[in-house]
Amino acid sequence: MYSFKNDYSEGAHPNILKALMESNMEQSEGYGEDKYSLAAITLLKDKMKCDEVDIHMFCGGTQTNLTAISAFLRPHEAVISASTGHVLVHETGAIEATGHKVISMKVDDGKLKPIHIKMTLEEHTDEHMVKPKMVYISNPTEIGSIYKKQELKDLSECCRLNNLILYLDGARLGSALCSKGNDIEFSDLPRLTDAFYIGGTKNGALMGEALVICRESLKEDFRFHIKQKGGLLAKGRLIGIQFLELFKENIFFDLAKHANDMAQLLKMGISNCGYEFLIDSQTNQIFPILPNKIIEKLKEKYSFYIWQKIDEDNSAIRLVTSWATAEEAVKSFIDDITIFMNEFYVV
Amino acid sequence: MYSFKNDYSEGAHPNILKALMESNMEQSEGYGEDKYSLAAITLLKDKMKCDEVDIHMFCGGTQTNLTAISAFLRPHEAVISASTGHVLVHETGAIEATGHKVISMKVDDGKLKPIHIKMTLEEHTDEHMVKPKMVYISNPTEIGSIYKKQELKDLSECCRLNNLILYLDGARLGSALCSKGNDIEFSDLPRLTDAFYIGGTKNGALMGEALVICRESLKEDFRFHIKQKGGLLAKGRLIGIQFLELFKENIFFDLAKHANDMAQLLKMGISNCGYEFLIDSQTNQIFPILPNKIIEKLKEKYSFYIWQKIDEDNSAIRLVTSWATAEEAVKSFIDDITIFMNEFYVV
Amino acid sequence: MYSFKNDYSEGAHPNILKALMESNMEQSEGYGEDKYSLAAITLLKDKMKCDEVDIHMFCGGTQTNLTAISAFLRPHEAVISASTGHVLVHETGAIEATGHKVISMKVDDGKLKPIHIKMTLEEHTDEHMVKPKMVYISNPTEIGSIYKKQELKDLSECCRLNNLILYLDGARLGSALCSKGNDIEFSDLPRLTDAFYIGGTKNGALMGEALVICRESLKEDFRFHIKQKGGLLAKGRLIGIQFLELFKENIFFDLAKHANDMAQLLKMGISNCGYEFLIDSQTNQIFPILPNKIIEKLKEKYSFYIWQKIDEDNSAIRLVTSWATAEEAVKSFIDDITIFMNEFYVV
Amino acid sequence: MYSFKNDYSEGAHPNILKALMESNMEQSEGYGEDKYSLAAITLLKDKMKCDEVDIHMFCGGTQTNLTAISAFLRPHEAVISASTGHVLVHETGAIEATGHKVISMKVDDGKLKPIHIKMTLEEHTDEHMVKPKMVYISNPTEIGSIYKKQELKDLSECCRLNNLILYLDGARLGSALCSKGNDIEFSDLPRLTDAFYIGGTKNGALMGEALVICRESLKEDFRFHIKQKGGLLAKGRLIGIQFLELFKENIFFDLAKHANDMAQLLKMGISNCGYEFLIDSQTNQIFPILPNKIIEKLKEKYSFYIWQKIDEDNSAIRLVTSWATAEEAVKSFIDDITIFMNEFYVV
Repeated sequence: MYSFKNDYSEGAHPNILKALMESNMEQSEGYGEDKYSLAAITLLKDKMKCDEVDIHMFCGGTQTNLTAISAFLRPHEAVISASTGHVLVHETGAIEATGHKVISMKVDDGKLKPIHIKMTLEEHTDEHMVKPKMVYISNPTEIGSIYKKQELKDLSECCRLNNLILYLDGARLGSALCSKGNDIEFSDLPRLTDAFYIGGTKNGALMGEALVICRESLKEDFRFHIKQKGGLLAKGRLIGIQFLELFKENIFFDLAKHANDMAQLLKMGISNCGYEFLIDSQTNQIFPILPNKIIEKLKEKYSFYIWQKIDEDNSAIRLVTSWATAEEAVKSFIDDITIFMNEFYVV
Repeated sequence: MYSFKNDYSEGAHPNILKALMESNMEQSEGYGEDKYSLAAITLLKDKMKCDEVDIHMFCGGTQTNLTAISAFLRPHEAVISASTGHVLVHETGAIEATGHKVISMKVDDGKLKPIHIKMTLEEHTDEHMVKPKMVYISNPTEIGSIYKKQELKDLSECCRLNNLILYLDGARLGSALCSKGNDIEFSDLPRLTDAFYIGGTKNGALMGEALVICRESLKEDFRFHIKQKGGLLAKGRLIGIQFLELFKENIFFDLAKHANDMAQLLKMGISNCGYEFLIDSQTNQIFPILPNKIIEKLKEKYSFYIWQKIDEDNSAIRLVTSWATAEEAVKSFIDDITIFMNEFYVV
Repeated sequence: MYSFKNDYSEGAHPNILKALMESNMEQSEGYGEDKYSLAAITLLKDKMKCDEVDIHMFCGGTQTNLTAISAFLRPHEAVISASTGHVLVHETGAIEATGHKVISMKVDDGKLKPIHIKMTLEEHTDEHMVKPKMVYISNPTEIGSIYKKQELKDLSECCRLNNLILYLDGARLGSALCSKGNDIEFSDLPRLTDAFYIGGTKNGALMGEALVICRESLKEDFRFHIKQKGGLLAKGRLIGIQFLELFKENIFFDLAKHANDMAQLLKMGISNCGYEFLIDSQTNQIFPILPNKIIEKLKEKYSFYIWQKIDEDNSAIRLVTSWATAEEAVKSFIDDITIFMNEFYVV
Repeated sequence: MYSFKNDYSEGAHPNILKALMESNMEQSEGYGEDKYSLAAITLLKDKMKCDEVDIHMFCGGTQTNLTAISAFLRPHEAVISASTGHVLVHETGAIEATGHKVISMKVDDGKLKPIHIKMTLEEHTDEHMVKPKMVYISNPTEIGSIYKKQELKDLSECCRLNNLILYLDGARLGSALCSKGNDIEFSDLPRLTDAFYIGGTKNGALMGEALVICRESLKEDFRFHIKQKGGLLAKGRLIGIQFLELFKENIFFDLAKHANDMAQLLKMGISNCGYEFLIDSQTNQIFPILPNKIIEKLKEKYSFYIWQKIDEDNSAIRLVTSWATAEEAVKSFIDDITIFMNEFYVV
């Protein structure tokens, strides 16, 4: 049984484990103030060509989101999110648990645009409603699409004009930045967003996300919030070492590119069989629409999620590749789908 | 510079890294539903001779405390804590941030007793005050003392009589259970508490705490709370593997014993120089009272915290040992303190 | 300038002020434990033919909702609301501020039906999403429609089958129960809901809402929650006296009937001019669709809210009547609209 | 049975009820934007000789405190309070329920001094502890003592130097400002505090507190917070009218003076019998220490709270007078205590 369920099925890139071994018995400062974490922060600033940011390490994405959002907003302020947004749908009300409403905007392609922001602002006019204050986007989105640079620029300008905070969830940021259609540079992010995070967990780390705070006014006292929300890891070096390894030779981008390549290989194979896709994704999640009969057969050998019922006979499934996806597994999946298709339709 | 600042300066016990290496490229289920985490849970239940508990893994202690406490209490219910309690003092208001008051009871030895519970209950009589509902204790306490079995039994009975939840913070549980004066068995805990956690971070893991929920009514839907508070690790096996390694050959207890032994060695050496201690600790934190002059000299070669000013010339310091503390470092510390003492007083 | 903006423009029914005068210098217990509040509770139980409920008085609706909802739910539990629901839209995130997500279900007529509940439950399947636990409805809805008895029964049954709490916001309950199409009795509410509140503010009181808790398991310690959320009025008799006056001679229902009658009079007059309505309401809020030109003229003499743009030339407005609405004002409004219409179209 | 239990046993000063009657059928704007509320705000500004403040009306003190404190603080910031502080002890964790820790400082006379602030700041040094940000004081304190002008100045200066918010709970502000030892002017408060509230409930209103926000940076968006916390009264004029009546002819101060006079009369009478007091209060709460035997006798004719056990035979009781306390009741109490004393000791 090979899994295309997600991008966190395996452990970490071997370089990371090697670095953990080598540094294991060194004594270091706790709570992220060790030399590895500091070096990782310096390296990340260097890679994004921006020294004017604050960087904080977290264990996971939900924790990053809830800590950042609750630190950045006052109690009456709310988040605007696409209807597919992770904070809206898949974090068990983590943001609401810190007291903030997440306003849902219906979108088809997972992406918020200035028009959605304007609509929200027009509806929220007085103190009887929450005050929209943050725009939350994910790149890639939860359904695999990516923002083009001009789209991000437009959003960024819209936010600045309306005094909104633009926050980018980069759980799979590597995949977005390394995808075929992407024209956003890593170094664009500190200029175009107020805060964003770089996902390690889904791109080769054991765990770890690096939150980058770009807007000056959001930086103050941030470590208090990490501690209060339970996110300040005693052995902080554990995350520092990982980001150091991921970025010092740009493995981070190589791994993301591999994940994307595997997804595109899958996509091509499935497409060659004549199947369509729910959405045109160039990142590491794809959503082919397959006959239920074939899905049943595939499930005997592969694990993956059924994403959505299309009609009585067909469903969209989600296939996720990762830094660790074996090319043979992809090829075998394509072979199998071809065989199953022929079995059913040959007669 | 050798550090006696804390018990999380080094990485993990080598067995843990080895196990992470060996399992690294295996695919496993996410969010703690992998085979390692399940095996660790089974093993822990076996070690505590109790099958009727639920066990959940967390990255850190503050996260464990805030998730458990907010899941267990209704909004008007409060926690009773010793005035030294970690949740009261050193978690940046994490419990209050989930909406609950922590009531402080002044104690000298870090330990709550039934008398403190009764005093609190007598003071909180109506709906104009919070309703005390949970008793929070740490074993060992934040100042190194431990609960005797009879003390824990008395507290447990007092809690049951008054319909209070007894929660034990075991950040350094190994050290308590392996200390000289201890008469509590690991298997006593599920019977005597309603919930407790087993600290991995401070006893040889990279990170990881295992929360044990003993009282049936506290178990329902607990995973929702972990997710909501940002504590559900995608690669949950990372913690599962560590607890499996720590407990399968009882390394957990060996490491704790080593930490205690090193602390007692330090204590004896310092005591032999004629110095006193702020509190009589048999766990891995000791609090010698030293002349400031000697402290200054020691600080050139060792790092540790100044705990408390005693008078103009003397202060109590905190020395913490761990599973990784080298016996040579301890001996060298004792040699140095002896030399410094002689330097100052020989004339 | 006569106002049809809302149903809280005037003070209180004269009986209420009279009763306040008469009792003014009596000494009474604080915090709602006075004889008037107790008598009001007894009277309300009598009127709803149910002794097995707990009743608590509040100053306002948002306060009632947030206190009840946060007392009834555990942190991971969420509220299902129609997309027009007051708690969702017009309480400045009051529910989220207590930590709970409000799930929006798109409806056209303001009413939730079992199908919406089922859809929500089917989507919320695991701990990565909130757990739907309460169904929030308003009767009448925020757009003036009412639940029929069978609809309420169906919802009630659906909630019981799925272990959900059914909560009814009765800010304008009087108007619903006294409207032409209504077939729900006051005494049906304790049987069909788990909790509901009886709105006084919008039906002749200076202020005051009476929360009725029907389900046994929701009653415990409720006064702690009122106090904690700032809702326990020192001179609680102020609300008790008002409910006593409103219900002792059934003024509550008479006032609501008057408000409805005035609205229906308006409706008939506007309808006779040939205008349509956004929704067919039989309660005290109506939503006629008028030419913008006529709206402009009306605004010179009457105040009301523009509810929604219909097209370039027409908008829906909201007209609200109340216990205090003067019949002459209604007639004058109808006369004016007829005159304005003729002015514009006579040529 | 005459009650000296509190200062909210009766209704409102007759002028208030008269004003409510006269304005009853006028239509006015909702949510505190009516002409009465606006006039009351103008009048209050005039009385405190300061136009640069924002004023908001609330129904009760706990609601005022929780709304102001949660609006003013970021999540990691905490309140410093005397150990007797109302927010610390008697608001059912209302402040904690909004996420903020209240730090208790042990004081004997109910008053915080700069030394307490400095001690707190010295203890709270890093992100592992909350950040003290607000100093909460009550004037008069919960035990009847008052701040002298110099004391308030010193606190104010200490707060400004340390970038702390000074918040004054004025539930009984009238009594403080009209007490014999007072040297603070009403107009000193906007200069010396960052925010304070003027208590109406305990000084002749049906209900109502007026929050005055003095510091510019605390004013923004405040009405959102009132609404979110359930404090925005639909018929806001109800409170506006009351403050207008209380201040337009300075009744507010006359009523407070009466309450103080009654308390001092009681005090003198009790003192003449040879009894001592727990604290020397010149406001409307006094705490005589009486033999339990006499207390038992008094309880047959008067209601009041037992405050504290002194020894086996004596207890301190709390007697509260108000704007409505009848001089005859006071005299009768003194007569009775004299009689009871003689009964017991004559033999």
